[in-house]
Amino acid sequence: MQHKSFRNMPCPIARSLERVGEWWSMLIMRDALFGLRRFDEFQNSLGIAPNMLARRLNALVEAGLLERHRYSAHPPRDEYRPTQRGRDFRPVLIALLAFGNRHFAPEGASVTIVDAQTGVEAEPIIVDRATGRPIREPEFAWAPGPAAGQRTRQRYVRRPQPGTRPAGAETDQHIFERGAPNAPRRKA
Amino acid sequence: MQHKSFRNMPCPIARSLERVGEWWSMLIMRDALFGLRRFDEFQNSLGIAPNMLARRLNALVEAGLLERHRYSAHPPRDEYRPTQRGRDFRPVLIALLAFGNRHFAPEGASVTIVDAQTGVEAEPIIVDRATGRPIREPEFAWAPGPAAGQRTRQRYVRRPQPGTRPAGAETDQHIFERGAPNAPRRKA
Repeated sequence: MQHKSFRNMPCPIARSLERVGEWWSMLIMRDALFGLRRFDEFQNSLGIAPNMLARRLNALVEAGLLERHRYSAHPPRDEYRPTQRGRDFRPVLIALLAFGNRHFAPEGASVTIVDAQTGVEAEPIIVDRATGRPIREPEFAWAPGPAAGQRTRQRYVRRPQPGTRPAGAETDQHIFERGAPNAPRRKA
Repeated sequence: MQHKSFRNMPCPIARSLERVGEWWSMLIMRDALFGLRRFDEFQNSLGIAPNMLARRLNALVEAGLLERHRYSAHPPRDEYRPTQRGRDFRPVLIALLAFGNRHFAPEGASVTIVDAQTGVEAEPIIVDRATGRPIREPEFAWAPGPAAGQRTRQRYVRRPQPGTRPAGAETDQHIFERGAPNAPRRKA
């Protein structure tokens, strides 16, 4: 596929997507973090063409999310294991899972996250580690970091933050808190 | 682009990616949630080809993450606003931002999330809303939900959960807690 690279964009979202934003890549990471290791296992789980799977696995190894381990010399066979960087990708998958369950599972959730001891369904939300406060607007905002270049700084000056939008614009308040009208209810 | 659709997969991650997993789509959502509204604004921000941008905007409208509002009749011009569903996508972007800052910003963070009052940098983690406990293994596990089909149920029975892997396998414990060795430090 020939598409524009995000590699030179300073945005951390773009840089993440450069490594794991290809079609299939996140599902491969899902399976790898679930415990799948071998080419055939991924292929069987995903129904993906072998040449495509090989390309995606190579790219994830190159990006440092998976690493190759040879488990058979004759014939040569590799398995793929998540690295620490790969394991750090899990929150993205959990956020995608919560989003999918909320909006694209009219028949109910097919996969959920549960307390491993009690089986009670969890409801994932994003908070600030130090304070435990939900990360939502207007309490939290995106801001240029220490390595921000001129364009990033201008962007954050130029654009109004959603929390300070003119009256009449829709509010983003509570977006991390409030479920959609059809949000599934927690079990307990 | 001709690629296999994820639409018929029961997995909520696959269903989310079906709607927003195309190259560019998540960056368009990033910009839309940041406040960009008009075609030219997206084009200028992203450096994306107009025909590609039009396709992606149409797909996001169709998926219910953006909605069109005509702001000029002569010439006809639409702007694109996030819906509630689109705003619910923000946690995915925050997780991607945290992942990118941790792993792909060797020069330091370009964009961060801060307390809007104090400017103190936040560190996003995923917790269970009801208990506030970090969602990590082995305390939490993925499990078939009420709408899981046979294949999903088998999958969760057949595969070992990472928290119960044989001794010697790498552990996933603390994956939501521990930073990578090169993780940027919080400001305060």
